[in-house]
Amino acid sequence: MQKGTLLYEGKAKKIYSTEDEKVVWIEYKDSATAFNGVKKAEIAGKGVLNNEITSLLFLKLDEAGIPSHFIKKLSDREQLVQKVDIIPLEVVVRNFSAGSLAKRLGIEEGIQFKQPIIEFYYKDDSLGDPLIIDAHIRELEIASTDELIKLKEHAVKVNAVLSSFFEGVGIRLIDFKLEFGKTAEGNILLADEVSPDTCRLWDLETNEKLDKDVFRRDLGSLTEAYENILTRLGGRLHV
Amino acid sequence: MQKGTLLYEGKAKKIYSTEDEKVVWIEYKDSATAFNGVKKAEIAGKGVLNNEITSLLFLKLDEAGIPSHFIKKLSDREQLVQKVDIIPLEVVVRNFSAGSLAKRLGIEEGIQFKQPIIEFYYKDDSLGDPLIIDAHIRELEIASTDELIKLKEHAVKVNAVLSSFFEGVGIRLIDFKLEFGKTAEGNILLADEVSPDTCRLWDLETNEKLDKDVFRRDLGSLTEAYENILTRLGGRLHV
Repeated sequence: MQKGTLLYEGKAKKIYSTEDEKVVWIEYKDSATAFNGVKKAEIAGKGVLNNEITSLLFLKLDEAGIPSHFIKKLSDREQLVQKVDIIPLEVVVRNFSAGSLAKRLGIEEGIQFKQPIIEFYYKDDSLGDPLIIDAHIRELEIASTDELIKLKEHAVKVNAVLSSFFEGVGIRLIDFKLEFGKTAEGNILLADEVSPDTCRLWDLETNEKLDKDVFRRDLGSLTEAYENILTRLGGRLHV
Repeated sequence: MQKGTLLYEGKAKKIYSTEDEKVVWIEYKDSATAFNGVKKAEIAGKGVLNNEITSLLFLKLDEAGIPSHFIKKLSDREQLVQKVDIIPLEVVVRNFSAGSLAKRLGIEEGIQFKQPIIEFYYKDDSLGDPLIIDAHIRELEIASTDELIKLKEHAVKVNAVLSSFFEGVGIRLIDFKLEFGKTAEGNILLADEVSPDTCRLWDLETNEKLDKDVFRRDLGSLTEAYENILTRLGGRLHV
């Protein structure tokens, strides 16, 4: 498989074509962004860590019967994945209050919800990725009622698998963001990444934050936090 | 029935006790506020118009089998209503895009939705009355799943009655906000007001705005717009 032309450059990844029109080549960048791109930095090694962690978690999810776009890890920063049209929704699952939701509801962080909360945010930088409800999604024709049901089912499953996996290594899965895409055949696949960029991960004992909040809130070394996660997940550090 | 002590003063109304603990006395003020209280004005006659219009619409809804807190109109500015504990939700029904939703979704105003959209906003000035979803409402214990179903059923019914009533007098009901309350017995009743302060009302032919957007957007005389609505609804002007 050969790396072709650059198809898209996002905040954290570049996507290239390959000679197979159903497959794209992803390169993880070292860029860190937060607050809809207002806070930015280059953090050496972040891309390598997120590629490693995402690859590991997509394999884990695959074993649990949750299909994703992931095909294989190619190198430190590169993956091959199935080409999908990304559904412009951030599917957020929350087990504990944190971040924007704690602010929205005026509650403390770290409160456990009676049931996981699933939210949809409209992926649109110019609008600031607003929270939207099912009815908005149907009216905008972003997803049908059936597709919304599928997205929620996938999200609940991913949450069950990841929560238990992380708990096994002493980490509390506070919340996370998923993105899904559709293949040319119309199948919905988990896409994007699953990493400390997209999950809030707190140490079970100390509540230490081991995720992008370290960058958002200037809490210390982001790479140390991500290395901590990778090591606990059984991944190999590239020293 | 006698007016007792002031129980609560809101942005647009004062609420007094009466000698019957199940009944309160409402006085409509002339205050106009918008953008969560950032824009304010006193508009002579507004309270009288909203009292008249709300009384008329609550009677109309009652005839259509939709219970509300309304008992009777007492005077130009005063109503007797059943005492309820207000559920801290703004229940918004939208038939056409406008206002904050058009901004949220990045769409034009005036687009008809395939189905009316029902939204819940958390009534909390300090939080800016944020949009919230059913799961948030359940976690905050603002309303149970059964109560949410009831609120949505009421909202759909109110929309059907008001839309057809307004259409009959040449007005398009774009969207509106309802508030509900619980009686001591736990019954859910439509409460607050239904007026051009809480509804977006556009002339069917000209799309002229005949509601609080006249104030929000400095489009002319608010009282003329409200008088237009009152007259079309068959109400009596207090000249």
